[in-house]
Amino acid sequence: MLLTTLYIIGITAEAMTGAIAAGKRHMDWFGVMLVASATAIGGGTVRDILLGHYPLGWVANPQYLAITCLAGLFTTMVAKWVMRYHKIFVILDSVGLIVFSIIGCRIAMDMGLPAMICVVSAVVTGVFGGLLRDLITRRPPMVLHKELYASVAALAGGMYYTMMHFNYPELIATVATLVIGFIIRMAAVQLGWRLPVFKLEEESQQAIAKAEVQTESK
Amino acid sequence: MLLTTLYIIGITAEAMTGAIAAGKRHMDWFGVMLVASATAIGGGTVRDILLGHYPLGWVANPQYLAITCLAGLFTTMVAKWVMRYHKIFVILDSVGLIVFSIIGCRIAMDMGLPAMICVVSAVVTGVFGGLLRDLITRRPPMVLHKELYASVAALAGGMYYTMMHFNYPELIATVATLVIGFIIRMAAVQLGWRLPVFKLEEESQQAIAKAEVQTESK
Amino acid sequence: MLLTTLYIIGITAEAMTGAIAAGKRHMDWFGVMLVASATAIGGGTVRDILLGHYPLGWVANPQYLAITCLAGLFTTMVAKWVMRYHKIFVILDSVGLIVFSIIGCRIAMDMGLPAMICVVSAVVTGVFGGLLRDLITRRPPMVLHKELYASVAALAGGMYYTMMHFNYPELIATVATLVIGFIIRMAAVQLGWRLPVFKLEEESQQAIAKAEVQTESK
Repeated sequence: MLLTTLYIIGITAEAMTGAIAAGKRHMDWFGVMLVASATAIGGGTVRDILLGHYPLGWVANPQYLAITCLAGLFTTMVAKWVMRYHKIFVILDSVGLIVFSIIGCRIAMDMGLPAMICVVSAVVTGVFGGLLRDLITRRPPMVLHKELYASVAALAGGMYYTMMHFNYPELIATVATLVIGFIIRMAAVQLGWRLPVFKLEEESQQAIAKAEVQTESK
Repeated sequence: MLLTTLYIIGITAEAMTGAIAAGKRHMDWFGVMLVASATAIGGGTVRDILLGHYPLGWVANPQYLAITCLAGLFTTMVAKWVMRYHKIFVILDSVGLIVFSIIGCRIAMDMGLPAMICVVSAVVTGVFGGLLRDLITRRPPMVLHKELYASVAALAGGMYYTMMHFNYPELIATVATLVIGFIIRMAAVQLGWRLPVFKLEEESQQAIAKAEVQTESK
Repeated sequence: MLLTTLYIIGITAEAMTGAIAAGKRHMDWFGVMLVASATAIGGGTVRDILLGHYPLGWVANPQYLAITCLAGLFTTMVAKWVMRYHKIFVILDSVGLIVFSIIGCRIAMDMGLPAMICVVSAVVTGVFGGLLRDLITRRPPMVLHKELYASVAALAGGMYYTMMHFNYPELIATVATLVIGFIIRMAAVQLGWRLPVFKLEEESQQAIAKAEVQTESK
């Protein structure tokens, strides 16, 4: 019940970020709905396909798809407002990230999958929506560059898995993961925490490019 | 029988547009076959994966895959001709779009899925081939910008669903959807009908970019 | 046993090439692990989804996923070394390509699929990892341009299928395919063999663009 409410808030917020990205690429209403839906429910879709967990969530419950399409179209009318209150979206997006991660972890656990796959399921659910959005709108994928995002999903998944594994009541595991995950995510945003970046320097790049050319031209 | 014939015409035409896109990117024969196949049967493939409808069409009937590969290679030999008679392709592509939509709607109906998912299935079957083509050849996805395309797929799917729901004979539902869908699509192309475009103005964009930077730099 | 050992070598080498591509795009550790995994096990994942072959390999055996993530992170520490011994990777990558193709062909055969689908399964397993890597890191997809790559996968798949079909012992079919596939692949790299490229000349391109504009502006 709590999770469902937070899930609906999460997909609505994600759909609106998707619609904004579509607007930057001057897409039509169909494009807006497609990118909004891919952002909001793409992560769960990819997870269900990878795990063979059929029917997909939105096929069984089309109302979630209706919500994301409507949220996308609604965004086209209130884009300026969305822009002004950008910080609200960072907060809603963080709630969504943790909720998606918990749901992803939970579904993999219900399927009896090993711990590592449960954490991967949490990460896929949390981050693939944003990844699809950036692929379709042809932007550098933010989740692969930005402040702790996938890591927070992994952490939330791992924490929820551990608490459930040690038989904590479900409600306590859910709320504890939500609170701690949210605090860490907001701290990461505020303090600019990020994973180390792997940067190949120009020199290495050129050497590699040269080696590639030599190999190819042979 | 009628649908199968039109389906083969449709995938052949779509495969040829895929091959032309591959040629613009200077791909080799394998790339041509891959893009041709993704364009022609990618929509049905994505639909079947989303609905969990196995085996995929071309796995059960490999001859369809053979047709798209051959049509792709054949296009490399007749590219100039294809270019000159471009308008024929707009017509064949329109036939393909409606046929794909009807088939997509039909498969979802046979699986007993709700009306909304049947229409989504029609749209996915109709437009994801072109979307995959544009992603692989790294072009702005046309179906998200162009004249009524996805909307025609949704309309065709909805019309077919409604007629079948009210027990019209299958042949009549199919032919009526084909004729009306085709007329609307051709009218959209000729008269430049399109969905409203969601365009974030530079000003909003810069404000958003600024807000993003502020959030990230904190 | 032999195949498993070679498979682990193959996914390790592929993961390292994925990590290098992520480093060129300045991705963080999560991005490195994601691109490394997509490159190494993405081909098998796409194949299993297309064939409906569940559970996916890495869901059933998470240790393979752990290997690719660790190989990716390890690469960030030894990037300069990797760059210097670039040729070793061309060799390991070739071994991986043939091994992936054999495994892909074998899985489709075990599912009782027709010959053409077995060869397609070999090609998908062999080349989709590299294709996903290039899509995520937004580079022109190498497998669609480069020296015989997909063709070698098709050849290896076809050879393995034929030998198994005529009841050669499995070990002989595997080793023969490995040796001959490897020789052809290395010859293709050394001698620059490639498939004919389909190049639409500027003139045709402009004519097509013009035709498109005319159609759209109507």
